[in-house]
Amino acid sequence: MKTYLDCVPCFIRQGLEAARSVCDDEATIARAMKRVLAEASTFDLSLSPPEMGQKIHSIIREEVNNKDPYRQIKDSSISFALTMEKRVKKIIYESDNPFGAALRFSIAGNILDFALLSTWDDERIDESFKNAMDKPVDELVVKELEEDIQKSGNVLFLADNAGETVFDRLFIETFPKNTTVTYVVKGGPIINDATLECARKSGLNDVATIIDNGADAPGTVLTQCSKDFLSHYESAPVVIAKGQANFETLNVATKKIYLLLQMKCIVVAQHYGYSVGDWLVKTTDKLAKERRTNMLKGKTGKETDL
Amino acid sequence: MKTYLDCVPCFIRQGLEAARSVCDDEATIARAMKRVLAEASTFDLSLSPPEMGQKIHSIIREEVNNKDPYRQIKDSSISFALTMEKRVKKIIYESDNPFGAALRFSIAGNILDFALLSTWDDERIDESFKNAMDKPVDELVVKELEEDIQKSGNVLFLADNAGETVFDRLFIETFPKNTTVTYVVKGGPIINDATLECARKSGLNDVATIIDNGADAPGTVLTQCSKDFLSHYESAPVVIAKGQANFETLNVATKKIYLLLQMKCIVVAQHYGYSVGDWLVKTTDKLAKERRTNMLKGKTGKETDL
Repeated sequence: MKTYLDCVPCFIRQGLEAARSVCDDEATIARAMKRVLAEASTFDLSLSPPEMGQKIHSIIREEVNNKDPYRQIKDSSISFALTMEKRVKKIIYESDNPFGAALRFSIAGNILDFALLSTWDDERIDESFKNAMDKPVDELVVKELEEDIQKSGNVLFLADNAGETVFDRLFIETFPKNTTVTYVVKGGPIINDATLECARKSGLNDVATIIDNGADAPGTVLTQCSKDFLSHYESAPVVIAKGQANFETLNVATKKIYLLLQMKCIVVAQHYGYSVGDWLVKTTDKLAKERRTNMLKGKTGKETDL
Repeated sequence: MKTYLDCVPCFIRQGLEAARSVCDDEATIARAMKRVLAEASTFDLSLSPPEMGQKIHSIIREEVNNKDPYRQIKDSSISFALTMEKRVKKIIYESDNPFGAALRFSIAGNILDFALLSTWDDERIDESFKNAMDKPVDELVVKELEEDIQKSGNVLFLADNAGETVFDRLFIETFPKNTTVTYVVKGGPIINDATLECARKSGLNDVATIIDNGADAPGTVLTQCSKDFLSHYESAPVVIAKGQANFETLNVATKKIYLLLQMKCIVVAQHYGYSVGDWLVKTTDKLAKERRTNMLKGKTGKETDL
């Protein structure tokens, strides 16, 4: 999807919060923010919001001289998730449908996102896990995904945030024993997205082959990804993509992708007819069908709007 | 006071909301916003937030080709205030201290500010008037102002927002009969600040001589004001300045000014040790004293920080 003008002040605030979290020299932060504003003033709005985020956070990292401003919150998120593991596993394996329950906790873990809200909010996070088993999701698509995994025995899993990774592992553990899983993280630190180190700390190496996509953009910007990742992506019979940035970058992908996420941003939510707080289990196939229907109904001018 | 980096994303959002309120062509708005971002990227942060607001809103007005984007909300604010006049007058004149009560409603009217929140919020506005008589304010300063007016018989009254103007009139009506009042509005449309027309529609010509300050900045940026205004300002024995933008531009004035406002912005509030929602009745003399004390205590590096 393209970047909306409403995304701009939000990204600028994000950049400022990221800089402040690791730097207390206002002159340095001011220099960084002036570069961020200049960058935003020439940004091509036909690119996706994650691509704007990538540019802004790269300027911040460079100017405050910190390669990974979200390092601490990523570590805290993983520790938090590991302390929850036992309790969540119990719920998953005591449920009638461990695959469906684990998928729900994998989406619950998507709350560990510090782009929009940069500080830890116990209440907000607890609520996400408390509601995991009751949140409405499209159960038919959950079933379709389960069957696709059973049939192919091979899954490419595009990760989102650190910490959420632990719940992704619990989800993968419910796949049939002989399933080949490739778990894909970012090629470099970007916001609190999972990196190779995060995936390892979350125990993903016990259930999957971990690779990175070669890019340091949030989501999956295919034009920036490594050849190695793209060959995995093109040949994968089943692709799961977690989180809103993957939704924003892969929503118009021609390949069938299962998008699993919490809708967090009002701009994206409103554009797609969702509400902030909704949980989505959706395929790109279904999104394409909805786009065609909306175009026929004249709700949207052109496909690239979406 | 200087502009904080936190002001920047807020002003950019304000600019976008102002543009959207009068223009539905996204390409025009995008062009305006790109200019706004470029302007912000080179803005001198030692200038005050109202000066940044002035630049941003001037770009918006030019690009969307609308001289007064807040025209409608200014008219609605005045109509709303006029419908409340009778009820408020009753409370004022039934109170033990009409001057103090009218001052309180003049501050209550300061809620009619659409810079930070661009849409009308009935609940927020009603609450401001409901709490008018109970909000804590510095009663000693209220008394000091009343005595200063009685002694001098001459007041320069720097207005803030359209609509609030009606309550300012009710306040002025409680001054001693022979008081000379000069009511000062902005030299051109800026956000929903009162202009000559707003003051006339609010009946200020019955109680004061209305002049403008020659500038289209929010607040009172003395370096931009007309000679005529400055001669009034310099010779005025009593100056009342309404609203947060006047606080931000006159807080370090060497002249004694009575600042009457609701604290609405978290950045300004935190910097001065207030909370959002606080009502202030404060003189620049007191602010200067607090600055000196804070400097002695080492709370702030230099006076210009304030």
